[in-house]
Amino acid sequence: MSSWGNDVKISIFGESHGNGIGVVIDGLPAGEKLDFDEIYLQMSRRAPGNDKATTPRLEKDFPEILSGIFDNTTTGAPLCAVIKNTNTRSQDYGNVLKNPRPAHADYTGYVRYNGFNDIRGGGHFSGRLTAPLVFAGAICRQILERKGIKIAAHISSIGNIEDERFNGTDIPHELMDRLSKAKFGLIDQVREEKMRALIEECRMSQDSIGGTIECAVTGMPAGAGSPMFGGIENVISSIVFGIPAVKGIEFGSGFEGSKSRGSQNNDEFYYDNGVVKTRTNNHGGILGGISSGMPIIFRTAIKPTPSISRKQRTVDLNNKTDSELEINGRHDPCIVVRAVPVIESATAIAIINILSEVHKL
Amino acid sequence: MSSWGNDVKISIFGESHGNGIGVVIDGLPAGEKLDFDEIYLQMSRRAPGNDKATTPRLEKDFPEILSGIFDNTTTGAPLCAVIKNTNTRSQDYGNVLKNPRPAHADYTGYVRYNGFNDIRGGGHFSGRLTAPLVFAGAICRQILERKGIKIAAHISSIGNIEDERFNGTDIPHELMDRLSKAKFGLIDQVREEKMRALIEECRMSQDSIGGTIECAVTGMPAGAGSPMFGGIENVISSIVFGIPAVKGIEFGSGFEGSKSRGSQNNDEFYYDNGVVKTRTNNHGGILGGISSGMPIIFRTAIKPTPSISRKQRTVDLNNKTDSELEINGRHDPCIVVRAVPVIESATAIAIINILSEVHKL
Amino acid sequence: MSSWGNDVKISIFGESHGNGIGVVIDGLPAGEKLDFDEIYLQMSRRAPGNDKATTPRLEKDFPEILSGIFDNTTTGAPLCAVIKNTNTRSQDYGNVLKNPRPAHADYTGYVRYNGFNDIRGGGHFSGRLTAPLVFAGAICRQILERKGIKIAAHISSIGNIEDERFNGTDIPHELMDRLSKAKFGLIDQVREEKMRALIEECRMSQDSIGGTIECAVTGMPAGAGSPMFGGIENVISSIVFGIPAVKGIEFGSGFEGSKSRGSQNNDEFYYDNGVVKTRTNNHGGILGGISSGMPIIFRTAIKPTPSISRKQRTVDLNNKTDSELEINGRHDPCIVVRAVPVIESATAIAIINILSEVHKL
Amino acid sequence: MSSWGNDVKISIFGESHGNGIGVVIDGLPAGEKLDFDEIYLQMSRRAPGNDKATTPRLEKDFPEILSGIFDNTTTGAPLCAVIKNTNTRSQDYGNVLKNPRPAHADYTGYVRYNGFNDIRGGGHFSGRLTAPLVFAGAICRQILERKGIKIAAHISSIGNIEDERFNGTDIPHELMDRLSKAKFGLIDQVREEKMRALIEECRMSQDSIGGTIECAVTGMPAGAGSPMFGGIENVISSIVFGIPAVKGIEFGSGFEGSKSRGSQNNDEFYYDNGVVKTRTNNHGGILGGISSGMPIIFRTAIKPTPSISRKQRTVDLNNKTDSELEINGRHDPCIVVRAVPVIESATAIAIINILSEVHKL
Repeated sequence: MSSWGNDVKISIFGESHGNGIGVVIDGLPAGEKLDFDEIYLQMSRRAPGNDKATTPRLEKDFPEILSGIFDNTTTGAPLCAVIKNTNTRSQDYGNVLKNPRPAHADYTGYVRYNGFNDIRGGGHFSGRLTAPLVFAGAICRQILERKGIKIAAHISSIGNIEDERFNGTDIPHELMDRLSKAKFGLIDQVREEKMRALIEECRMSQDSIGGTIECAVTGMPAGAGSPMFGGIENVISSIVFGIPAVKGIEFGSGFEGSKSRGSQNNDEFYYDNGVVKTRTNNHGGILGGISSGMPIIFRTAIKPTPSISRKQRTVDLNNKTDSELEINGRHDPCIVVRAVPVIESATAIAIINILSEVHKL
Repeated sequence: MSSWGNDVKISIFGESHGNGIGVVIDGLPAGEKLDFDEIYLQMSRRAPGNDKATTPRLEKDFPEILSGIFDNTTTGAPLCAVIKNTNTRSQDYGNVLKNPRPAHADYTGYVRYNGFNDIRGGGHFSGRLTAPLVFAGAICRQILERKGIKIAAHISSIGNIEDERFNGTDIPHELMDRLSKAKFGLIDQVREEKMRALIEECRMSQDSIGGTIECAVTGMPAGAGSPMFGGIENVISSIVFGIPAVKGIEFGSGFEGSKSRGSQNNDEFYYDNGVVKTRTNNHGGILGGISSGMPIIFRTAIKPTPSISRKQRTVDLNNKTDSELEINGRHDPCIVVRAVPVIESATAIAIINILSEVHKL
Repeated sequence: MSSWGNDVKISIFGESHGNGIGVVIDGLPAGEKLDFDEIYLQMSRRAPGNDKATTPRLEKDFPEILSGIFDNTTTGAPLCAVIKNTNTRSQDYGNVLKNPRPAHADYTGYVRYNGFNDIRGGGHFSGRLTAPLVFAGAICRQILERKGIKIAAHISSIGNIEDERFNGTDIPHELMDRLSKAKFGLIDQVREEKMRALIEECRMSQDSIGGTIECAVTGMPAGAGSPMFGGIENVISSIVFGIPAVKGIEFGSGFEGSKSRGSQNNDEFYYDNGVVKTRTNNHGGILGGISSGMPIIFRTAIKPTPSISRKQRTVDLNNKTDSELEINGRHDPCIVVRAVPVIESATAIAIINILSEVHKL
Repeated sequence: MSSWGNDVKISIFGESHGNGIGVVIDGLPAGEKLDFDEIYLQMSRRAPGNDKATTPRLEKDFPEILSGIFDNTTTGAPLCAVIKNTNTRSQDYGNVLKNPRPAHADYTGYVRYNGFNDIRGGGHFSGRLTAPLVFAGAICRQILERKGIKIAAHISSIGNIEDERFNGTDIPHELMDRLSKAKFGLIDQVREEKMRALIEECRMSQDSIGGTIECAVTGMPAGAGSPMFGGIENVISSIVFGIPAVKGIEFGSGFEGSKSRGSQNNDEFYYDNGVVKTRTNNHGGILGGISSGMPIIFRTAIKPTPSISRKQRTVDLNNKTDSELEINGRHDPCIVVRAVPVIESATAIAIINILSEVHKL
């Protein structure tokens, strides 16, 4: 299903080469004044071919808002935003029906929908569907920001080149603000050059490369989330895996922590000016599914872009034989960069639902 | 929330030292004959202090079934199973209200429930609550087994000691069957000794150790699951993070795959006797959220047991000062071993819901 | 499905002649001190054979609470309550498998569950399952009462004998309190005798009789509920039709109002000491799905008890022929009386969910 | 919330005088060829000012489909349809902010959304929002029709003028087909004249009139639906009360049946050519929440149109005083006629979800 959320529900629609894509957001609080320049900024961080640009305002890709907004303020009714599709080059993918692209959803979608799904450009499985997700997240993060909650992510690795990690016990506001606007978000910006070189090398060799993204939520009050299946890890992962190419997620010390001992991994509590904190943050701000008041920190694994222009072996579904495939068209050799605001946005939608759950009755 | 599922819904209840724990399972298909010895076996794999035992049938820990079963067969009505609590040693944890245990949910639960939660033995956050989860999963996997679907997991690492990984393109039935009954599940059983030695070393040093568990689902038909938030990764992770101490999950090549190139990570398709397969299985049996027909494979990170008997620093919530804590009582220095059937069980519940979703109308 | 609710979720289980019945309530606020005498009172209003009794405390029918309560106070964890079955007379219904009872769920349950459902005493379809519903509702209404919200219902008709209706613009606290404790709840108590005579007449003639129940909610704040499918009418009806024998519901002037003109049915607004009220209450306290602050009022239609001891025609499912049936056993010729607290309880669970939805973020 | 459904989910958006209204339908089966003329016909039955017209194809009111359809066939991805708003006359309702209209949601919406809701033309509470509901229902009924399931409703009363009722044991295909296309649907068409005269009389006297709609579902297989809260009555009522002005619903003999005796109301079973049927249909095709195979029959109460042009008393929310109001603009003195296809559509969406639930695994 392409809908998600209990309190603030999103319902995403669209296919890559169809008439349009968009989102309905139901359950937003009324009376929230929205800053559309800020929303545009978030969408431009995700937009293709926009990386280094000096924001050439791509009006055409900004959603038309059909409902839920009056005088730039949420009315409380469902908000629907639509992006019309233009300039699509369907012919580039003319062969995918016959030959499923390795590591894409062509084959699984074909089986799931008995061959009726729109395969042009990946159809509903296209990364393009993350645009309405970013739009919805951009709204949610504005509302959260007013409550003192900031969400920011950075490229924590491209291939084997790593950025620094967040300092889990002390993440400055300035860093959060800088990252949440960045086009190529890094804690240590010096590493950008090396990462870009690696990406360029992959492009040149008709290949692609994966990476990881680390995301932080600061200002989160302690006591949000619920036990068992209502835990913050459950909620965040259930939306984040909706982003194409995400294949893993770990909170706090995660997989690395699983190699350690309790005496190393346990985070001791202390009082800091009357507030309970932990000296380290291996728990990633979440214990028993519930926020501790420390920054929430998680990392996601992004697989390398499946579309590479090298010849690949696949099957011919019509003739039921083995076959080969050469994918033409525009491809991003590393989607990690553009996935950063998508991760942040999904997180914002998760957090607004988590907070809605607690303050009840 | 402690309930989960759209089609086969579970609702887990209970607190570690309360009157009883259990589960309601709503939406099971009617007419499924259950093998209670098999269910008992699964529960005994999870039971504490039972590791090497020659199945000393712990009748007292086997749930009483209140409803939903007639003549050992599901009636289609909600099935409720209850395990009464006995032999609890509340006094061991008498100090947790005052001093939250590091890496436990004591503090976050305290804030979430304004101090009203039952803190004895961890209350509703206790690992003991995984017993009804295993019970529910044991039923689901019997139903799945009849459809040719097998679920099995193994200890893929304890600390830095690793087991082999599943061969993602060829997992023999015999291995699945062996692992799904094992008390200390390993692919390469020779490694058990080393792992046990490490666990024992941690126990001796009043410490604990984490690890990872790898789980496989074989016999899964292609075309199950849904795009975006209905993906198999989303569904599995949304239940698996309900298991205490799980802090990470990765599907297929996961985090390792994020370091690789598309040409390495893409799994090429081929025909094997008329069936579409992939030559490698870096996608973990899931593309675009939907099953490919290849084994579903994922790995979870389990943090080291938080309860260690070393003195630890914490706070005194009453006096609002820093404090120290020494945890007494029985603790398992490595919960990874017993978590194996819990992971399998949660997966079974996830898979039965995923399959229910597809075969509609 | 036998589970209901988004914020305060109930999951009801059990079969009439199985081991036990009960309910899990997940999402209750923590820290609510419960008055168990009050809960017992509500359950005794519903209990069979208890109508005129001077409360012979039927301890055996009071649920055992397994979880979610500590020191008589909610912990915030799921609350499970179980009533063990005793004194069931299975043989009375020994023929229902073969011969479905007219107007019962025997036949439809048989088809739904391929003959595997537990048919003894109606199984999961039994009116006995309303006991845990009353238990859950009794808890919710205590919490609501503390917020100034009262819920009470009365027998508005038995057959053609009618009670007065609530005065929709002025329902005294004393009336609400009296009705919410009554065993034979009437606004005009003089009519009890006539109603009892009619019921007795039906019993004597081996027949049964239906009726209607009118329910009011006072103290409801204006602005609760949501548009369209989140409306108060939607939420209340979606739980109330879960009560066996309910076949209709109308809010405010309902079916009678549908015969009237707008100039008659429209409720004009006015200010009463600074509070917006309506001069009449044909809207039943709900406009556009949302509460107006006036009392919520609705009426439900209860069909005559299906079990009558007259000989009835039915089918023989084994031989696939027409057949006849004589139902023996204890039957209540008019379930309307005992359904009153059940309607109130379902309403309480609905209202607590409606209120939880509004006060978000 | 303006979203509904577990398997086939709809999410409706829009405000009367906003940029557009529409619906996202998620979970439709793939491969369903749609007849858009048929969808148009259904929408034109609901459209205002279209009653006697010879289908002057109002292209402008037909939704633009943005996704989920390829070659007139469902792709299985979410289907989004949008109707742009044109020709709205906002000034007609310029005074509603200050003076809430009696029997409208103006006041309750104002409280619910702290005054931020879009009040022009009723905003999200407008009857105009039923257009996308009819669109969604028109798709669902085509899919159901292919499974032999027909849905049709008729005006069972306007004021005190009644149509015949459905013969619950024998509803001819021809009648279902005629009604499901009718602009002024009656079983006994002779009564149309009288009803129209009454409506005209109300219009002339600046008043309005309510009525009832009876709806039937034929071809429904036995065994669909679930016990308790998953019952067909629960599901249908939870969507039908989302239609503005619906204030009551009754299934089968409903309120009338509540006055009767068991010996009258019980429907006896018999075999008709090997199929179990009932001789009468007071149960409305539903027993224990589950379909019996007999036609599903229910009746809804529609209140008189709240907007009447007579002067009415109300409040002045700005000055907190009593006030008066005269509503100008176009109003339909009886919305019952146009509500018929809306009821059918909501029913179709309910039924497709009910059927999806059963055929699982």
